[in-house]
Amino acid sequence: MHSVGICGSDVHFWQHGRIGDFVVKKPMVLGHEASGTVLKVGSSVTHLKPGNRVAIEPGAPREVDEFCKIGRYNLSPTIFFCATPPDDGNLCRYYKHNASFCYKLPDNITFEEGALIEPLSVGIHACRRAGVTLGSKVFICGAGPIGLVTLLIAKAMGAAQVIITDLTASRLEKAKEIGADFTLVVKKETPQELASKVQGLLGCMPEITVECTGAQDCIQAGIYATRSGGTLVLVGLGQEMVTVPIVNAAVREVDIRGIFRYCNTWPMAISLLASKRVNVKPLVTHRFPLEQALEAFETTKKGVGVKVMLKCDPNDQNP
Amino acid sequence: MHSVGICGSDVHFWQHGRIGDFVVKKPMVLGHEASGTVLKVGSSVTHLKPGNRVAIEPGAPREVDEFCKIGRYNLSPTIFFCATPPDDGNLCRYYKHNASFCYKLPDNITFEEGALIEPLSVGIHACRRAGVTLGSKVFICGAGPIGLVTLLIAKAMGAAQVIITDLTASRLEKAKEIGADFTLVVKKETPQELASKVQGLLGCMPEITVECTGAQDCIQAGIYATRSGGTLVLVGLGQEMVTVPIVNAAVREVDIRGIFRYCNTWPMAISLLASKRVNVKPLVTHRFPLEQALEAFETTKKGVGVKVMLKCDPNDQNP
Amino acid sequence: MHSVGICGSDVHFWQHGRIGDFVVKKPMVLGHEASGTVLKVGSSVTHLKPGNRVAIEPGAPREVDEFCKIGRYNLSPTIFFCATPPDDGNLCRYYKHNASFCYKLPDNITFEEGALIEPLSVGIHACRRAGVTLGSKVFICGAGPIGLVTLLIAKAMGAAQVIITDLTASRLEKAKEIGADFTLVVKKETPQELASKVQGLLGCMPEITVECTGAQDCIQAGIYATRSGGTLVLVGLGQEMVTVPIVNAAVREVDIRGIFRYCNTWPMAISLLASKRVNVKPLVTHRFPLEQALEAFETTKKGVGVKVMLKCDPNDQNP
Amino acid sequence: MHSVGICGSDVHFWQHGRIGDFVVKKPMVLGHEASGTVLKVGSSVTHLKPGNRVAIEPGAPREVDEFCKIGRYNLSPTIFFCATPPDDGNLCRYYKHNASFCYKLPDNITFEEGALIEPLSVGIHACRRAGVTLGSKVFICGAGPIGLVTLLIAKAMGAAQVIITDLTASRLEKAKEIGADFTLVVKKETPQELASKVQGLLGCMPEITVECTGAQDCIQAGIYATRSGGTLVLVGLGQEMVTVPIVNAAVREVDIRGIFRYCNTWPMAISLLASKRVNVKPLVTHRFPLEQALEAFETTKKGVGVKVMLKCDPNDQNP
Repeated sequence: MHSVGICGSDVHFWQHGRIGDFVVKKPMVLGHEASGTVLKVGSSVTHLKPGNRVAIEPGAPREVDEFCKIGRYNLSPTIFFCATPPDDGNLCRYYKHNASFCYKLPDNITFEEGALIEPLSVGIHACRRAGVTLGSKVFICGAGPIGLVTLLIAKAMGAAQVIITDLTASRLEKAKEIGADFTLVVKKETPQELASKVQGLLGCMPEITVECTGAQDCIQAGIYATRSGGTLVLVGLGQEMVTVPIVNAAVREVDIRGIFRYCNTWPMAISLLASKRVNVKPLVTHRFPLEQALEAFETTKKGVGVKVMLKCDPNDQNP
Repeated sequence: MHSVGICGSDVHFWQHGRIGDFVVKKPMVLGHEASGTVLKVGSSVTHLKPGNRVAIEPGAPREVDEFCKIGRYNLSPTIFFCATPPDDGNLCRYYKHNASFCYKLPDNITFEEGALIEPLSVGIHACRRAGVTLGSKVFICGAGPIGLVTLLIAKAMGAAQVIITDLTASRLEKAKEIGADFTLVVKKETPQELASKVQGLLGCMPEITVECTGAQDCIQAGIYATRSGGTLVLVGLGQEMVTVPIVNAAVREVDIRGIFRYCNTWPMAISLLASKRVNVKPLVTHRFPLEQALEAFETTKKGVGVKVMLKCDPNDQNP
Repeated sequence: MHSVGICGSDVHFWQHGRIGDFVVKKPMVLGHEASGTVLKVGSSVTHLKPGNRVAIEPGAPREVDEFCKIGRYNLSPTIFFCATPPDDGNLCRYYKHNASFCYKLPDNITFEEGALIEPLSVGIHACRRAGVTLGSKVFICGAGPIGLVTLLIAKAMGAAQVIITDLTASRLEKAKEIGADFTLVVKKETPQELASKVQGLLGCMPEITVECTGAQDCIQAGIYATRSGGTLVLVGLGQEMVTVPIVNAAVREVDIRGIFRYCNTWPMAISLLASKRVNVKPLVTHRFPLEQALEAFETTKKGVGVKVMLKCDPNDQNP
Repeated sequence: MHSVGICGSDVHFWQHGRIGDFVVKKPMVLGHEASGTVLKVGSSVTHLKPGNRVAIEPGAPREVDEFCKIGRYNLSPTIFFCATPPDDGNLCRYYKHNASFCYKLPDNITFEEGALIEPLSVGIHACRRAGVTLGSKVFICGAGPIGLVTLLIAKAMGAAQVIITDLTASRLEKAKEIGADFTLVVKKETPQELASKVQGLLGCMPEITVECTGAQDCIQAGIYATRSGGTLVLVGLGQEMVTVPIVNAAVREVDIRGIFRYCNTWPMAISLLASKRVNVKPLVTHRFPLEQALEAFETTKKGVGVKVMLKCDPNDQNP
């Protein structure tokens, strides 16, 4: 392994030992945003050889079930997934992974960009399920790492205008810096008021809302804000039961679609990064050598910066 | 006009004077499930002539706005719609309608079948938004008129197995009669228990749930019941705010999609009825001449039978 | 193995030793339309056990490449496929196959129905790529086994009217028997004349044409016949280079889509057969014990009947 | 009218009096790439008022037929279309058009950009029918005005790499300037050789080919070049009958889709231009006042430059 990013879920498992039904029952290696160099391959592997630089897709199906066959392998109930108990992650020096889910990086993509394909994939899957396309107006709730990658991807897919909201002004600064057309600090607005402000800034209702906070108020605002016939994608997850204005969504045919991780995103992310059409480098705000992992996790826990990278190769701590 | 069916919304306007934001402020003609004979056409109409038997699509856009242009004219905010205030309906002897939304009936389709295209259209739009296809397993909540037409359409689209639930056993008898593979009388099950029973009867989770009651418990059951990657379509509407297990839906990528009336259904419904692949005739359980409209409405209000037809042509009271 | 159907391609390999780039270079077992009983399973197989009756999907990907990941595994260039050189088929008594591509048959599906899922799958994939839906008007060129299964599937998907053409009146009799709404014996019509006759019989242009002959004249007729905005699916394959009225297709946005075998069809075919919504039994017109395989192949070669079945289990020669 | 671009079809009607079945039988005003200022509106028009700057969509359906209802109004056989006989175009000082197909321009879009929405729309419709998305590799045949706008749009939709070919090196210079990743001067390659060169430059086969020449060799190359499961979109039209490697396309499931003009493109084009995500200004290489229309047409006929603009407002000849 060369570079491994820390995700909020890593911190959550570290602090709470569980996320929903996934409970840590024995020691588990964390980390699922990773890139590294191939040391050895199995005899039937033809697309990789030792020395190749690769990005790792952390979810690799264990069996060819009906979900895999139709191309939605992320829904396979028996999938292996790094750092989701009981499966170990890849925040370590040496790691073995299904070769079909290791993707060769071209020379013009750094290891850190390779590791960032994981969070980028969440944005890709969200924007794809949302149907972002040329000229789309998009409302993104929440300017954390996932909100920011969703912003980058929405713009790369041709969105004309993206508005992003957050409770914290400093996060919106970052959003502005990487391409948000409008930012809005959320205060004590009701969901309807927030929706109305979004419409006011955009000059129209957005066809697409991507909700990245999981807060009930934001989900409600997402429904009110979205144009008839549009789509609300739920990325952030909060409390299990949420009260929503279902009639408002239904009679305006605003679809509500969640995402579970992602599938089929690495190849397009690599093409995209190689083409230099998105710049994810500003997302990395902190770096620590693997030995200082604890400090790195404390930094992420504090919510300072955007993405913290752990550098696992003692001989190469470059991006 | 020849035959006009009575819909629950007609009864609701009659009794309560409003449905949501649609308020009856002055006398309004009811009726929007209609067929009749052309008496006269405008000078630019070429596809119809006097004497043609036609079914009437009650929603006709008033302007060519962005929703019309993309083929989702049902979402046009300025659409004319029969018997939605302030627009008059067609429960009368003579009625004028946009010719582009009057569809010629072949000889082998009766006027009553023509009038039933309207409720059938709700089922078509629901099944189409749900993605019902060959071999689908479908769970329908509620065996009222809309649940029943959804059942007919789901089977016609190739659904392999349809399970339908209701509080009332007699309604499920009708469902069984017209093709339901499984029926289930709902008692005091929790949403999870209901979902589990549905799975038990089908032998698997359904890919598609069509919710026709609007009850919170049923919407919840619809989410729990639907297979990962599937779709829950909301047809029935109840209270504005509903509490739903949003995380369950999101992480299993169960899409939640409402429908608002329908669009682009009359031509396929006519093809379908002409092909005799579905039989809607058993849905008509009562008939009254127009003079006895009050009695007809009282019958619908009581919830007796399935569909009540008003016969508007004094010289022809045949189906 | 219990029942194995003979396909035109089996006969072709037997007679000519090649189909396009697939050349038989060493002895090869034929057969790819098969069903049988599980004798033994690998240690990691959980969905099957000895004694299960199964249908076999003959194409099983060898690696998880990009085509597999997106759910189009039939396009994987390294796929294993029964009886396509150099891969052996399953026309034999005992045969080993990837368990993920063996599907359990419910008790109410016979072995022969199980074997017929293979040709049925071609019809499913064709109709799915064509977008057959409720009320579709469909034109099928060619009433051989594939034309017939396409007819069955199109009707099961809700097609309102299907017209099927062939050079041979007797084949059209069979088509009529299993549900064709119109049949037409093709004589010396030009492609335009044929298209015009199809339109005359249907009363309109079909939205969908499925071409099952591979003949240039039929492909041309398929383009002329299809309604603007519709789809022509190419199933039959003939000469490599074909002259087509490309401007006619392009300016009317008639899409031209081929199919390569199928993917994701077995589960829906099993649901469909279990629901008794299609009846494939009339397709089997001849049966031979495995010992008389040569005679069976001669029968298929002569073009007598529709489908010839080889019975591989000496103790059970039932359907 | 303010600015009207000259299209190849305008020149063709001028020189030959016909394109296919469209024959000029009486004097006809040319021009269909136009923008101007509203002078007067009908009494029922609410979205426009005198003084508004507008871009004009030249195709406006005359009736609400089945194609309009499903959102594919470009296929409506009775559509009005500027400068397609017998309908007059808008290359004049004053012109009347269906208000629903006049779109208000924001202040930051010039009249010339507004006029360029027409050719841009061809590129949008082509890329949309092709399914261009994030990370797509796209091969464009032909670097005339349509090839160039397709290039701009493909990049705006997130295409990672676009290769464009032409017979003329100077046109490819322009393509390079506006964003082509690779250019290739076509010489005497066979279609297979051309396909192979495209693959060589891209490092893989493109998922999408957009053919903008209409030449048989290029259509053939487009099929050979496109990755299995991909799409070839036919934009350029040449001879009516074309010989194509149909088996190659069919067995690799390479779809062949034409386009007829466009539909539903103006709103997204306006969003796109307003967002400054594409720059169409370099496409305008020549300008003439309306009085020098003949000279302008001679310039276009010679194939000099990319787009020639006629300036119809004697008081404002600005872009």
